[in-house]
Amino acid sequence: MSPLPIRLHIPGPTPLPDAVREAGARQMINHRGPEFRALLGRVTTALQRAFRTEHDVLVLTASGTGGLEAAIVNHLSPGDPVLAVSTGAFGDRFAKIAAAYGADVTKMAVEWGRAARPADLASAVGEMVAAGRPPVAILLTHNETSTGVTNPIAGLAEAARAVAPDALLLVDAISGLGAVPFETDAWGLDVVVTGSQKSWMVPPGLAMVSVSPRAWAAAEQALMPRVYFDLRAARTSAANGETPWTPAVGIAFALDVALVLMEAEGYAAIHARHRACGAAARAGLAALGFAPFAEPDYASNTVTAALLPDGLAWSDLNAALKTRGLVLAGGQGKMVGHILRMGHLGFVTVDDVVVALSIIEAALIALGRPVEERGAALSAALRAADASTAIPAGATA
Amino acid sequence: MSPLPIRLHIPGPTPLPDAVREAGARQMINHRGPEFRALLGRVTTALQRAFRTEHDVLVLTASGTGGLEAAIVNHLSPGDPVLAVSTGAFGDRFAKIAAAYGADVTKMAVEWGRAARPADLASAVGEMVAAGRPPVAILLTHNETSTGVTNPIAGLAEAARAVAPDALLLVDAISGLGAVPFETDAWGLDVVVTGSQKSWMVPPGLAMVSVSPRAWAAAEQALMPRVYFDLRAARTSAANGETPWTPAVGIAFALDVALVLMEAEGYAAIHARHRACGAAARAGLAALGFAPFAEPDYASNTVTAALLPDGLAWSDLNAALKTRGLVLAGGQGKMVGHILRMGHLGFVTVDDVVVALSIIEAALIALGRPVEERGAALSAALRAADASTAIPAGATA
Repeated sequence: MSPLPIRLHIPGPTPLPDAVREAGARQMINHRGPEFRALLGRVTTALQRAFRTEHDVLVLTASGTGGLEAAIVNHLSPGDPVLAVSTGAFGDRFAKIAAAYGADVTKMAVEWGRAARPADLASAVGEMVAAGRPPVAILLTHNETSTGVTNPIAGLAEAARAVAPDALLLVDAISGLGAVPFETDAWGLDVVVTGSQKSWMVPPGLAMVSVSPRAWAAAEQALMPRVYFDLRAARTSAANGETPWTPAVGIAFALDVALVLMEAEGYAAIHARHRACGAAARAGLAALGFAPFAEPDYASNTVTAALLPDGLAWSDLNAALKTRGLVLAGGQGKMVGHILRMGHLGFVTVDDVVVALSIIEAALIALGRPVEERGAALSAALRAADASTAIPAGATA
Repeated sequence: MSPLPIRLHIPGPTPLPDAVREAGARQMINHRGPEFRALLGRVTTALQRAFRTEHDVLVLTASGTGGLEAAIVNHLSPGDPVLAVSTGAFGDRFAKIAAAYGADVTKMAVEWGRAARPADLASAVGEMVAAGRPPVAILLTHNETSTGVTNPIAGLAEAARAVAPDALLLVDAISGLGAVPFETDAWGLDVVVTGSQKSWMVPPGLAMVSVSPRAWAAAEQALMPRVYFDLRAARTSAANGETPWTPAVGIAFALDVALVLMEAEGYAAIHARHRACGAAARAGLAALGFAPFAEPDYASNTVTAALLPDGLAWSDLNAALKTRGLVLAGGQGKMVGHILRMGHLGFVTVDDVVVALSIIEAALIALGRPVEERGAALSAALRAADASTAIPAGATA
């Protein structure tokens, strides 16, 4: 283990603020006592503000994938037609869960690196309606972590509702919610899932799931089996300040503190910070020869995917980065060996991104790769970050 | 919040040693990098030693109930005859999970406070065999947390195998394994589940599950749906030092440290310590007028359930205890208001039990209840603890 700093820039888990780390070290309490009851109340109302919902938000002890499973099994029955909009590995995963539980899944696969278009979604939904099997649910990915694309959820939701007003909108918002503008109620989303290790600056182990009244009504009819992920049980317990099964108390301590930190900064400032980090990462990586993988208008402000320059092997680059203390993520699925992914969400500033770029530049030089001018990428990143402040706050919605 | 010490004596989460708490405060790492890979390897082999198994032990991000769900859904198909031996609320829960996923569950319900008897199990299995629907699996609870009973798993397993040699033995060992003698392989158990917040002195959020080769073979045929809890995916990832979904990294840090502490103490010493704590709790509570709820030969050494004396309301007692810093658990299900439950597992010594008894005594006096002689219960507890060291180590098996 190196005594030098480790810069963790994967798309979750993200680094933790000291106050969050310290909360994770607290002594245990009774998860069915008054302290936990107060904590769960605070966390739930803070999450409602973060999700921008007046409806239920439930906290499950699981990683984000468990939250996705909850979104599926509570609201669907085997055989239900489902439209899964997939823009990458996580969209595929959401579809796979639905299929595993017997949903009749139609996949709208979008080329990796591109965002789903509302018009294409309207067509796909329209085809299902015309075929006499309108979708009971539509699965959407907000921020596709495998490709660095943020899908236009507001537009997709509107397009879907216009064609199939009764379809439930189930949204994987794991790696975006909290860091970029998101409106659960205003966009008419029925179930929204996020995970503690992403924008929330908390260790992994909690999934947070919002449920609309429409989704609750569906839960009463849904026949897919569930016990651990039964959201009705979670709702019943939550009314009493508890969870049906023993919760991850230590992670809940951390989340409680992190949400206070986030509200102290303010979501508008958090969104601006992520916009600046995203702009810096994209500009800096481009200046270092890593072409953007995501189409520019939909590039994520929480994770940047960029193509490796010709002739540069990921294994070589990654080894040179690790030696210098930078931890990035490689490609997933079909993009293994073709892209790198830099996480810049949660506890991160433009300065962290600049340091990461500096380390990448040093690694490239060490590997004998051409670098235009020492530090030029850092300048480009800073300029892009500064320029990003001119973008209005709601623009990435 | 009181500035005075809080004595947490519920049957999990248990108090944490300082080194474990500190581990929970560590900065995040890449869960798909070399440090986590090494950690998962250490944890897995230490768990294999603790479970006394040479087969797979998988770490899931979930509370114990999630581990029980994994035990069911990976090895059974809808319609499979299953015999659920229930000695309390957690046995009922295990049965409920199987039924929710479509198993054809026959319940062998044992009166609360009593242990399941091998002869009764043999009869119940025999009836199913005679009826032409031999059980595909038998669900057993090792330590029934709701009643403070430790079931004789070795004898039950032997009896089951004699009548239905092909039945899988799925065991909820959540609140006993690690603290009292347990033999996964020698007893022929197919799936064994435990949870991080019990004997392991770690915050809740990880379930640990062992899987026998027989159970793996069944997993290939099992038709119950599963994704998040798919143990085959966990096994595939574990071979590469990873988990299929982002794990609760912070809790894994804590478990890694706790297992080192446990091996430093040694399992024989840990078992003796829990035997002494159990003996102390039972003797002390009896001296204070709380009759034992569990039948004596099967009283648990990790949690003691005792009947409230006539005329003493749990709400009054609990309030008087909390004021004095003692946190106990009340009854569950049909025993709400009738029993108290004192956890004494994990990071606990006889001295902790004596302090808890002292606080109960003080609360009784404050409530105007008769107390024989101030401190007599503490003496009784200490004498019982001392006497417990005469019991051979394997006796509770």
